[in-house]
Amino acid sequence: MGVLRIGVCGLGTVGAEVVAQLQNIVSEKQIMARQIELVAVSARTKRDLENVEFVPNPLDLASREDIDLVVELIGGENNIAYDLVKTALENGKHVVSANKALLAKHGVELAKLAEAKGLALNYEAAIAAAVPIVKMLREVMCGEEIYELKGILNGTSNYVLCQMADLGIRLDECLAEAKFMGYAEADPSFDIDGTDAAQKLKLLISLAFGCELLEVPTKGIEKVEPLDMKLADDLSYAIRLIAHAKKTDKGINAGVEPVLVALGTKFAQSSSTNNMIGVLSKVRHLFVEGEGAGAKPTASSVIADIFDIARNHIVPVFGIPAPQLVLQKTVSDYDDVSPFYIRSFVEDRAGAIAAMTNIMAQSNISLSGINQPPIERNLKIENENLAPVVFITHPVTKTQINKAIKELGNLPQITTEVLAIKIET
Amino acid sequence: MGVLRIGVCGLGTVGAEVVAQLQNIVSEKQIMARQIELVAVSARTKRDLENVEFVPNPLDLASREDIDLVVELIGGENNIAYDLVKTALENGKHVVSANKALLAKHGVELAKLAEAKGLALNYEAAIAAAVPIVKMLREVMCGEEIYELKGILNGTSNYVLCQMADLGIRLDECLAEAKFMGYAEADPSFDIDGTDAAQKLKLLISLAFGCELLEVPTKGIEKVEPLDMKLADDLSYAIRLIAHAKKTDKGINAGVEPVLVALGTKFAQSSSTNNMIGVLSKVRHLFVEGEGAGAKPTASSVIADIFDIARNHIVPVFGIPAPQLVLQKTVSDYDDVSPFYIRSFVEDRAGAIAAMTNIMAQSNISLSGINQPPIERNLKIENENLAPVVFITHPVTKTQINKAIKELGNLPQITTEVLAIKIET
Repeated sequence: MGVLRIGVCGLGTVGAEVVAQLQNIVSEKQIMARQIELVAVSARTKRDLENVEFVPNPLDLASREDIDLVVELIGGENNIAYDLVKTALENGKHVVSANKALLAKHGVELAKLAEAKGLALNYEAAIAAAVPIVKMLREVMCGEEIYELKGILNGTSNYVLCQMADLGIRLDECLAEAKFMGYAEADPSFDIDGTDAAQKLKLLISLAFGCELLEVPTKGIEKVEPLDMKLADDLSYAIRLIAHAKKTDKGINAGVEPVLVALGTKFAQSSSTNNMIGVLSKVRHLFVEGEGAGAKPTASSVIADIFDIARNHIVPVFGIPAPQLVLQKTVSDYDDVSPFYIRSFVEDRAGAIAAMTNIMAQSNISLSGINQPPIERNLKIENENLAPVVFITHPVTKTQINKAIKELGNLPQITTEVLAIKIET
Repeated sequence: MGVLRIGVCGLGTVGAEVVAQLQNIVSEKQIMARQIELVAVSARTKRDLENVEFVPNPLDLASREDIDLVVELIGGENNIAYDLVKTALENGKHVVSANKALLAKHGVELAKLAEAKGLALNYEAAIAAAVPIVKMLREVMCGEEIYELKGILNGTSNYVLCQMADLGIRLDECLAEAKFMGYAEADPSFDIDGTDAAQKLKLLISLAFGCELLEVPTKGIEKVEPLDMKLADDLSYAIRLIAHAKKTDKGINAGVEPVLVALGTKFAQSSSTNNMIGVLSKVRHLFVEGEGAGAKPTASSVIADIFDIARNHIVPVFGIPAPQLVLQKTVSDYDDVSPFYIRSFVEDRAGAIAAMTNIMAQSNISLSGINQPPIERNLKIENENLAPVVFITHPVTKTQINKAIKELGNLPQITTEVLAIKIET
């Protein structure tokens, strides 16, 4: 088969690290069937690399005869990344990509293209950076009946939540710090609003349940305040952005949303930018954790993807051949019951709590706890004339909760949005 | 390549489950390059399986022309299992084995044989049952510089330690219950004395550090009492049987031994028969957890190994070609410092503690804590005339500790063996 000649597109922090690791590979160990050679790179600004050609237009890498494998590290779902990957596959080149947005949108189309030509389309780095979850689902658990998966899939938001809890600082301050530390991108909106985690979850759902890509309900952490972290902690919970999916008779019950998870559980103990995923099948329960961000960990997954291709180890993009992926629907979780954490800011005048508890009673929601923390506590609240009030409910449906918080919001004493977060039991 | 024809040897709980899973494989999904067919089985007592031949002598499976892959589930290191695997490889058949004892002893010899013929020798189920740690090391982290690994590798002893802590019952009672629950074998000595974990650790060391199999110092949990679990818990620790290995300039610092791990850490939270392993490389830190025992989880790893062969995905047995495995030595950890938990049973007469603390002072071991729990506490001790005394030391070397506990044992007030357990910091 000869040398595997590689072209890398995109030389951001991950791309630069991939190039560095590629240039350091000790090939005399013969762990691969084919030798690896970095032939060319492409990026927005010109770089000079020894023995590696710089190509201004990334699309040129997709058509050159002296390249067998294109590594796409540009990002984005509809831009040049799509053209690059599609053209590369059409021209008979393997592709390794870290682009979750692209794959979550065009993954099945690209998979069909790759598989028809016997090419690899590997994307381990697109989901949970360092964690080899794609390999685990495509190769290890591929013959098993998986019924549930759950994870923390976004390192930036997890870092922000941990910092909010540890330092009591607000989301925007955490983000500024995360950017400074290199844990957040210039525009972190997709990390905070759940989009990034949802893109990864979409891919995991297809891998785990053998189905076409489907949309998942998504809620971010925008409305979580440091106060909520503190109040949750008082109740022995942490708040985490959880991605979850469960196979039911009616379809896939899935979503991304902030959840109160009990202190002491793995999800609550996740710290910094780590990602973690639990997968339950009928024959085993696996849990895996590793860095969810960072140049070195992300690049390590890109390199492992390249190694598999250099070993001629090519598997279907979503575990089973793309034409066999079945159509599934997303099942609403509006009728699932769980306890909820409901936090509102209330104007401090007589009758407020009575009005609120009346609404809960009329909505048939029974409370297992109420907390109006005394004002002297060191809780950072924007408007100091408002008092935070927390209800913990007994298990109820999301339908009930949504109706109740709408009514709470209509009370004259409540002028800011009411936050409701599911409590994991 | 045609159908992959399989012969399974050994039909214990795992073997029977492998056969059941093989017969249930949905092959129309085309996730493999070759179709799979179970042709024959062999076991000590005859079984009747539909469409599957029973062969009384397992060795016959290793030489039959109509078998491409032998699954060895007999166990043991020097018995028929060795002959079976060797003959199968010599006759050009792939091998999947769950036999850690065999591989930890003859692994390199068998690897050379397999690799010379381009055959697979897969053994995912031999280490941490359901956990795909072999794949993680052979395929995912194979290009990385791994410097440390640590894990709980024996499900039976972990179950026993958890039960001892939860129920306050003694090792022998726990074992009786574990046998009843199917978590312990008829003779669980290798689980309790650390041999089983050490065999797995030997394989992990070769996989992680690219070296020949080497011996590791091994200590079991035989001397741990329910009292120790209770006293450790009072200090916010749990006791776990930890396998660890670290690469140093001088060699591999490795061992299996009981360790006090802080409550709240992953190892302390391991429950029941679960196994867990953390692997640290220069580019990422991975942690993986899953069932360490049980027919279904163990069989699932055997099946995944078979799938890889059916996909023509064959990698070197220890990650790099066996002739390239380097010779390493085990570095003694006698000069490493850590705090220790020292528990002795002392005859309740004047001067005992003074004599003991004098020994510690003369050994230059300074204490960070002493605990002689009051007699009224519900601590199950065999000889009620003896009082348990616990010292917690500041960081000291194992050499110092061993010298001191020998001297403690010579005191007339101490008539039973003194227990010293490292505390992880």
